[in-house]
Amino acid sequence: MSKIAILGTGSWATGLARVLNDNGHEIMMYGIDQSEIDDINIRHCNYKYFKDVQLEKGIVASLSLEKTLADASYILITIPTQFVKDTLLKVKSLLKEKVTVINAAKGFDMNTNMRMSETIRDVFTDSEINPVVSLIGPSHAEEVVERILTAVCSVSLDEKTAQDVQKLFSNQYFRVYTSNDEIGAEYGAAYKNVIAVASGIIAGLGYGDNTRAALITRGLYEMSLYGVVKGGQRETYFGLTGIGDLIVTCSSVHSRNYQAGLEIGESNRAIDFMAHNTKTCEGVRTCKVIHDDVSQNNYGIETPIVDAVYRVLYENADPKATVAELMARDLKSEQL
Amino acid sequence: MSKIAILGTGSWATGLARVLNDNGHEIMMYGIDQSEIDDINIRHCNYKYFKDVQLEKGIVASLSLEKTLADASYILITIPTQFVKDTLLKVKSLLKEKVTVINAAKGFDMNTNMRMSETIRDVFTDSEINPVVSLIGPSHAEEVVERILTAVCSVSLDEKTAQDVQKLFSNQYFRVYTSNDEIGAEYGAAYKNVIAVASGIIAGLGYGDNTRAALITRGLYEMSLYGVVKGGQRETYFGLTGIGDLIVTCSSVHSRNYQAGLEIGESNRAIDFMAHNTKTCEGVRTCKVIHDDVSQNNYGIETPIVDAVYRVLYENADPKATVAELMARDLKSEQL
Repeated sequence: MSKIAILGTGSWATGLARVLNDNGHEIMMYGIDQSEIDDINIRHCNYKYFKDVQLEKGIVASLSLEKTLADASYILITIPTQFVKDTLLKVKSLLKEKVTVINAAKGFDMNTNMRMSETIRDVFTDSEINPVVSLIGPSHAEEVVERILTAVCSVSLDEKTAQDVQKLFSNQYFRVYTSNDEIGAEYGAAYKNVIAVASGIIAGLGYGDNTRAALITRGLYEMSLYGVVKGGQRETYFGLTGIGDLIVTCSSVHSRNYQAGLEIGESNRAIDFMAHNTKTCEGVRTCKVIHDDVSQNNYGIETPIVDAVYRVLYENADPKATVAELMARDLKSEQL
Repeated sequence: MSKIAILGTGSWATGLARVLNDNGHEIMMYGIDQSEIDDINIRHCNYKYFKDVQLEKGIVASLSLEKTLADASYILITIPTQFVKDTLLKVKSLLKEKVTVINAAKGFDMNTNMRMSETIRDVFTDSEINPVVSLIGPSHAEEVVERILTAVCSVSLDEKTAQDVQKLFSNQYFRVYTSNDEIGAEYGAAYKNVIAVASGIIAGLGYGDNTRAALITRGLYEMSLYGVVKGGQRETYFGLTGIGDLIVTCSSVHSRNYQAGLEIGESNRAIDFMAHNTKTCEGVRTCKVIHDDVSQNNYGIETPIVDAVYRVLYENADPKATVAELMARDLKSEQL
């Protein structure tokens, strides 16, 4: 039995807390909202995210980062990427023993645009933490919390730590495989959120399953091209952290990125969404990071879907016309 | 303007007839059911498949194969695979000029287990037909007939004929790319129907989107392994005829293979379905063909999903237990 400190009290935090609690571990979630903490500790639920889920009493939360971290062997990150670095700096000042940091946030640091694993290594020294692990794969929290069979990857440059985390989470309904392609998996996990925004947009505009399948297919190709120029392995995009995660994010009402796109498509304008976007839609910022990266560097690749979403989100382009243009690109033979 | 003879009066025949009619071509469908023919010719609809679709007057059908074939430059095959060879033998006896045969059926010949392109070349000589073309991709007829944006591949060993067929079908809502990997695309198009049966089974058993994404991911890997040992290119499985077609077939209520699996999953037994299966569910026979092929040859690959579906369909295995077993396979690191 280990103690795991979970940074965050959102849906993914709660889903993974249940997995770890089911596996007999001690868990504590760190949150910043008293009403959420009370919900978890007193009413044993997380009503904001799961209306009908009664949580186990072993799932507890705290406003105190110090209390959350005490005696923890693992720290699990489930907060939005823009809050990760600041929170980790607080964690660093409180650390007493070497820990394993497991990342489950998907996107880039808001100031440096570093990947999350890089951000973690930027904050901590090698003597403070074990090799970084990311938990990535097709896994809506809404299903994990219902104990619906889910398969994800424990991704780490270090095989032993990946296996350690695999063992920590694995059970009958939560199956964890290992992977060593940190770059490929992490860029894929970020990129897929942009494709999901596009998938929501086309659904909102009234396109169908055929259109979505074509979009996902081209999206997979596009994200694999980007991942490879960034140093990832193409094979990774064939797996759970690539096509698996992409499918589930592009097709499910549970996805916040898909929902964002849906709203934009239905209203055929992004300006309202961008005005009230509560920053939990990672795809919005990820789109800008990737778009800027590709425009500023000579990678020799094209990213038409990211570019189209960028124009809709940041240049107020008409979604309908932009999608029509994207789909009408003059591709004679299929490039793969 | 060309004349296209369409073999079949089903949903795919009707969807493609509308595309071709919209493109200004003369089309005639060949059918064997007088009431369907009357529906099309007199009431301008195909009520059996599309309750609310009013067809154009240029879309006509006939009980006479001779009349259908008269002056046709193209023959489009949209009938179930088990009827293809016999119908083509009749076509052969009536042919007067060289034609292009376009295949849109997905599976294997019922006696020889040949792919459809091979079957076509087995019936016709090179002087009777131009190089064979297959039309494959994520394309539910129910959406094509509504003119919802769809992208497919015109697949042929001969680039020029592939381009000719591309031009024949392409329009604003039906986008056609070319591909030359006949083997990879054709095995993929067949294999994906078995994965769709599995996808329906897991949905019927109550699993979720996470589970389906994991199944599709492993299904893609499995079908690419099989395609490659049969002579296809792995890249093809990254494209419209691979992952694209797989996603749409595994996720949509429009798919007959998915529906078959759903029924089996919900009742947790295949025996009733197998008793009344009306043979339009290609995945059922395809599963047996692939299972037997892999068991009888030393390809050095594993096909766990096909094997599981085979046990459920043909050995009356308990679907719930079989899926649990499939999902619990001891895979430590993700193989890609």
